[in-house]
Amino acid sequence: MIIEQFFEDYVLGSERRSFGRTITETDFVVHAGHTGDFFPHHMDADWCATQEIGQRIAHGTLVFSIGIGLTATVINPRAMSYGYDRLRFIRPVHIGDTITTITRIADKRDHPKRTAQGVVTETVDIRNQREETVLACEHLYLVDRRSAAA
Amino acid sequence: MIIEQFFEDYVLGSERRSFGRTITETDFVVHAGHTGDFFPHHMDADWCATQEIGQRIAHGTLVFSIGIGLTATVINPRAMSYGYDRLRFIRPVHIGDTITTITRIADKRDHPKRTAQGVVTETVDIRNQREETVLACEHLYLVDRRSAAA
Amino acid sequence: MIIEQFFEDYVLGSERRSFGRTITETDFVVHAGHTGDFFPHHMDADWCATQEIGQRIAHGTLVFSIGIGLTATVINPRAMSYGYDRLRFIRPVHIGDTITTITRIADKRDHPKRTAQGVVTETVDIRNQREETVLACEHLYLVDRRSAAA
Amino acid sequence: MIIEQFFEDYVLGSERRSFGRTITETDFVVHAGHTGDFFPHHMDADWCATQEIGQRIAHGTLVFSIGIGLTATVINPRAMSYGYDRLRFIRPVHIGDTITTITRIADKRDHPKRTAQGVVTETVDIRNQREETVLACEHLYLVDRRSAAA
Amino acid sequence: MIIEQFFEDYVLGSERRSFGRTITETDFVVHAGHTGDFFPHHMDADWCATQEIGQRIAHGTLVFSIGIGLTATVINPRAMSYGYDRLRFIRPVHIGDTITTITRIADKRDHPKRTAQGVVTETVDIRNQREETVLACEHLYLVDRRSAAA
Amino acid sequence: MIIEQFFEDYVLGSERRSFGRTITETDFVVHAGHTGDFFPHHMDADWCATQEIGQRIAHGTLVFSIGIGLTATVINPRAMSYGYDRLRFIRPVHIGDTITTITRIADKRDHPKRTAQGVVTETVDIRNQREETVLACEHLYLVDRRSAAA
Repeated sequence: MIIEQFFEDYVLGSERRSFGRTITETDFVVHAGHTGDFFPHHMDADWCATQEIGQRIAHGTLVFSIGIGLTATVINPRAMSYGYDRLRFIRPVHIGDTITTITRIADKRDHPKRTAQGVVTETVDIRNQREETVLACEHLYLVDRRSAAA
Repeated sequence: MIIEQFFEDYVLGSERRSFGRTITETDFVVHAGHTGDFFPHHMDADWCATQEIGQRIAHGTLVFSIGIGLTATVINPRAMSYGYDRLRFIRPVHIGDTITTITRIADKRDHPKRTAQGVVTETVDIRNQREETVLACEHLYLVDRRSAAA
Repeated sequence: MIIEQFFEDYVLGSERRSFGRTITETDFVVHAGHTGDFFPHHMDADWCATQEIGQRIAHGTLVFSIGIGLTATVINPRAMSYGYDRLRFIRPVHIGDTITTITRIADKRDHPKRTAQGVVTETVDIRNQREETVLACEHLYLVDRRSAAA
Repeated sequence: MIIEQFFEDYVLGSERRSFGRTITETDFVVHAGHTGDFFPHHMDADWCATQEIGQRIAHGTLVFSIGIGLTATVINPRAMSYGYDRLRFIRPVHIGDTITTITRIADKRDHPKRTAQGVVTETVDIRNQREETVLACEHLYLVDRRSAAA
Repeated sequence: MIIEQFFEDYVLGSERRSFGRTITETDFVVHAGHTGDFFPHHMDADWCATQEIGQRIAHGTLVFSIGIGLTATVINPRAMSYGYDRLRFIRPVHIGDTITTITRIADKRDHPKRTAQGVVTETVDIRNQREETVLACEHLYLVDRRSAAA
Repeated sequence: MIIEQFFEDYVLGSERRSFGRTITETDFVVHAGHTGDFFPHHMDADWCATQEIGQRIAHGTLVFSIGIGLTATVINPRAMSYGYDRLRFIRPVHIGDTITTITRIADKRDHPKRTAQGVVTETVDIRNQREETVLACEHLYLVDRRSAAA
């Protein structure tokens, strides 16, 4: 779905909640195969059982990629993602956990150089089935100003 | 391979360069299927041809996941990744581009609370075949101090 | 996204158009691997070049699955898909073709037995980048009546 | 394997039974990734547990694609699949169910326009491990007549 | 398909030829992800272009696995594969090559210990589209004797 | 990682042990899809339960490919793999087993024709979590002699 939103249209504090998705053993195997990271923390159930972590844990990039992917439902042709700040792995994600992503418009500010665009910061809060945050970050968008587009 | 390295062992300015990996159309399709992000920017060659971008561009999370995956060759049991700062998408990655990741120990500092560990910051510079940076970020590690382990 | 719609809410003739998606060689290989159908019509470029078809053609089930998948953007908790009628493969789909799905509410009728639900027929028209229909079918839904839900 | 069969060779009532195949969680994840349909009915075990369905159910297109794929063992160069009729989802398929496909030549008739070919209808009955039908449909083939090929 | 064949039924010199299958870039990426072997010989097109090999070459295990997979069309419940001898990589396989597998019953001999079974050796000759052998090996089967089964 | 080793550098009896990797149901499904071998021994849990094998067993080519893949951590630009001898499937691998590969330099000999290279034989011993060998083979390398490179 396409919903055009200018910088002026973003409402501080507005939230969206994604569908949930159960992280499966398949996702672990696919992510290892996609990235080439086969570290035993993610792939060797027997070794993990002997460690403090107890069981396989999801790659950080897996939780990030799927968590962000859950929010990819609406295209705003006026916004461009240009990066992330303060990405933190808060809790491990295990096989069978179900994650959901809550995004919230947290900040709007002028761009230091570009007058036709503003910067919107969206906080990303990826939670498990117990509503515990597993990964948090800030998503940065460059968004056209309606005033400039006129 | 396992190489144990304490906080004291990290040398500021030391660099590692990964193997290269060509980003294929397959990686685009796998990443869309893995994350659920099928936005036309990544998946619709015809539509892209009518846009300023001209051709399909890789998902930001794809470049990040594969770029970080390229560095997953040595396990340091004394270090734990806990997040990333200042992740920026600098240039688009297209089908057929070859990326390589250069990491560099950029900072070592005390942890505000934990005395048994220090914080190591590694800059991550993902480059294409023209040695242009396509994605940059800072990788944060919590690393055991040898002094504390003694 | 969840949008609740009762039988009474469906408007005859209303249409939706999906995003486009380029069908890649990867999709051919994934579909063969998913279904176990490795017939040379889909998998052997050399043999196809000697045949009337000239090049590899997509599995019918591939075009159907991806074409229907393109429409999976909005959940209506009041509707349940129960089947398809008159599914026809109209034109071949080749590697590199871009498909888009147009759905249209074509019919609403009483269910022969259930008074609390009605039957909605949606025509599905999967087109290539030349706006030619490659696959057509009718999708059948059982939809709750608002009157019965009251 | 290639077995040439003309329209005249099809025997009404003849049946074939495929091998069985266990539908795994992997197949669910692969199908979601292949089609882009990540609806929680297929992907969110926690949410399903709160619903009447109780657990994740296979996509209709998954059961259809794999069920038809199970029959792809013999190529008849004289027959061309051109569509399906009366495709119905009879029972849900869950992770761990094993499906098998039984096909049966149900009808042979003249083509309304083409004299060199006839229409063969094969009923497709996809069953689970309890021999319950989970999906039924009619597969339509256009088959060369031997008389015309002479 | 199931075809029961006893040791006595194998005919020296009898041959089978598989369908062909075009080896795609997707197969390279899937195989790397399946096995964890991301060596630049298979994955870095730019580096390969600077080497004597000139372009990416298929993993040996890819050619072997797919070449053997092409022969998996008939199950003989009386035979059990127990190994391979003299597996040799004769020529490189590149993206776009089409491989076909020719198997030939080359030897039948007594098992040194088991009187109820014999050993059948099948030569496996995997060829590209120019009918050049790319991989050769001998496949060893343990096969029930009809005399013993009586 | 790249470590240059000439024929003279290989030390008879030296061993390497890979990380472990748990073989998952996903790996079974991916391997079937990659190779086209959907035999019920690997894919039909219900049928296997009625057989002597009791449960699904991994494809021989799966164990071989992943077992060899586990060793792909160091590139020696002076060595070229040219084949395998005496590949034997010793024990079945089931879903949930964890495999590890131990390689050992077992033999060094002159090449019958090439004086600039020698032949190194590395035994490959793929073990499960009980340290039982599941697959054994000999890996053959052609390795440059330092004397010839001088």
